[in-house]
Amino acid sequence: MSILVVNAGSTSLKFGLFAPGKADPLVSGAIDWADGDRQHAKLSLGGEVCAQVAVPDDRAAALCAIETVLKTAGPGSITAIGHRVVHGGTQFDGSVIIEERVKQAISNLSSLAPLHNPPALAAIEAGESLGVPQVAVFDTSFFARLPARATHYAIPYEWVEKWGVRKIGFHGISNAYCTGRANELLGGDPTKLRLIICHLGGGCSASAVVGGSPVATTMGFSTIEGLPMGTRSGSVDPGLLLHLQREHGFSAEEIERGLTRNAGLLGVSGISSDLAQVEAAAQNGNERAQLAFELFADRVRAAIGGLAVTMGGVDALIFTDRIGESSPVLRAAACKGLGCLGLNLDPERNADCQADTDIATVQSSGRILVLHTREEWMIARETERVLS
Amino acid sequence: MSILVVNAGSTSLKFGLFAPGKADPLVSGAIDWADGDRQHAKLSLGGEVCAQVAVPDDRAAALCAIETVLKTAGPGSITAIGHRVVHGGTQFDGSVIIEERVKQAISNLSSLAPLHNPPALAAIEAGESLGVPQVAVFDTSFFARLPARATHYAIPYEWVEKWGVRKIGFHGISNAYCTGRANELLGGDPTKLRLIICHLGGGCSASAVVGGSPVATTMGFSTIEGLPMGTRSGSVDPGLLLHLQREHGFSAEEIERGLTRNAGLLGVSGISSDLAQVEAAAQNGNERAQLAFELFADRVRAAIGGLAVTMGGVDALIFTDRIGESSPVLRAAACKGLGCLGLNLDPERNADCQADTDIATVQSSGRILVLHTREEWMIARETERVLS
Repeated sequence: MSILVVNAGSTSLKFGLFAPGKADPLVSGAIDWADGDRQHAKLSLGGEVCAQVAVPDDRAAALCAIETVLKTAGPGSITAIGHRVVHGGTQFDGSVIIEERVKQAISNLSSLAPLHNPPALAAIEAGESLGVPQVAVFDTSFFARLPARATHYAIPYEWVEKWGVRKIGFHGISNAYCTGRANELLGGDPTKLRLIICHLGGGCSASAVVGGSPVATTMGFSTIEGLPMGTRSGSVDPGLLLHLQREHGFSAEEIERGLTRNAGLLGVSGISSDLAQVEAAAQNGNERAQLAFELFADRVRAAIGGLAVTMGGVDALIFTDRIGESSPVLRAAACKGLGCLGLNLDPERNADCQADTDIATVQSSGRILVLHTREEWMIARETERVLS
Repeated sequence: MSILVVNAGSTSLKFGLFAPGKADPLVSGAIDWADGDRQHAKLSLGGEVCAQVAVPDDRAAALCAIETVLKTAGPGSITAIGHRVVHGGTQFDGSVIIEERVKQAISNLSSLAPLHNPPALAAIEAGESLGVPQVAVFDTSFFARLPARATHYAIPYEWVEKWGVRKIGFHGISNAYCTGRANELLGGDPTKLRLIICHLGGGCSASAVVGGSPVATTMGFSTIEGLPMGTRSGSVDPGLLLHLQREHGFSAEEIERGLTRNAGLLGVSGISSDLAQVEAAAQNGNERAQLAFELFADRVRAAIGGLAVTMGGVDALIFTDRIGESSPVLRAAACKGLGCLGLNLDPERNADCQADTDIATVQSSGRILVLHTREEWMIARETERVLS
């Protein structure tokens, strides 16, 4: 059994073919139309751009990925497909075999994840041509067990009852992977382990996980809440939105565009949504870049503090995804002041760390791990589990 | 010199006449039209309702307070008036003698504090009839020294430049008083003291203060952000507001009304905006009241954790204002899990505490203080200082 994993996003589609029990894919690649040019999208295999392809729509991109894999790994090489689906709402507390009702549910949730659910649906429909079982792995399922006190907003009760607005939580696939990996690395009793998982990439969230179950997370009803991100604001005063609308004539659409596309690291720095570029500009003395970096690090640190006391302490702090894995400067800044929680970073280990290593000092009472998240492999494992 | 302090709000006007150096007022009282009945507002003196008065508008309420004080303390007993002004924007980093330009500035800020700045302005105009100097003491000034990294939202930069949207911070008068009082009680070097001040009343905020200067606070650009409050939501996902507007046709006004008047403890519990009543209902098994209490305590605790790591540790945690001073159950719930920060509550001291006492265990490395905030006295002292 080898499983094709498809991660369809708004400007790219990543794919990988996994054999059972193997973390590294047999074939992996991406189709990228980041500049909006669907006629000349870039097809990469194993990290190298290998062709230009025309993908007029999301379905065509998925079909191109499937063909590429079949060409590379041989006909019949795909025995199942696992899809990453960003928003499963409150309906899906785990991965499911895709049937008509599942497709309908994913479609119904599109207004809550307009950049992600529609391309996932298109990829699912493209996958049907293969005639193999398909599984939906939701980025929200891990958080289905969040307690009500962590999901309920202090808003008028009828808004909750009538429209189901509540904290959902995202980056669940990465959180599930990191929880399992931390258990492996740390040993001890996994039912007692208190983790804080900082998933810092294009989107950013921090979550508290006790004994494998989430107890709190920064990301919310939508993917805007919580930490600042590449182009998203994270949490802001609700009164600020209302003020801009009433006093300065903003529409809800304009606010949303501002808070999702022109905010976060990009909005503050004016340089880039990429932390590496913001760091470089900050080091060259750019004041807005310095502010963006400080503000980001401060907010990550404050989230860690809040999550730590929610659990009554922390056994391991985890940094993962692009920023979490690649920026020692950010990790050092975010960990500054965490000694009061028993979390002490070792500067040398931090500066020169490999994936899946502990960068805390020997004396630190809590561990600090840098984990290479493997969402695609997690999806492959989930697909295998659901189908077996 | 005796100073009349006027604290004009949306449904009440509190007043007190202070002699220099005395924390307890010579005369103190309130005019209350909480039920909206301005023709039969209640006049209290020393905590006892003594008369019904007609106060057709905010100016009439202030004039009634002035007359009452003059009648009680004798003609000529008021030598200056100090006014609490909720919103001083970024213009006022300290208290000021009221001149025409100050009145204009307070008026200009009314759209940001529509329930508070207009009645303060009316009280100022009423006070002019006395011909004594008047001073404005702003609830925002204490936070004027917040660093940019704590006030800047990760929103599009042009919103900040063009419309000055930034975190302001409120409850500054109470924070200033509590900072001074904590210094007195704790001794040691006040330039190094790291405090977390939880001002929990009708409005709620938590702030970090290092060496007398604020470094972070939960309340924001408006008085909605941060902790849930009696009828205010505190922070919610910005995406939630946009969703309700776009998918369910809410106007900005409807959202604001919901988030400010029908949210918080009242919104979640359906019982009351008063934590005491929510606690009682929770103890009687009411599930929504239990949820409201848990959610409130959780959010206070998480804020404490975030502020503590921002300072690299905490020397004293302070609870003040109505809830902070009167609810041992809330204090216990909010402190649960803070042992990892070296803050350990003594259950007996907490249950049976007087104002201005330390309720931490002897072994606790950080102190936990319950302080009786004295905003009116602080305003009197500020008024005296500015005029001397």
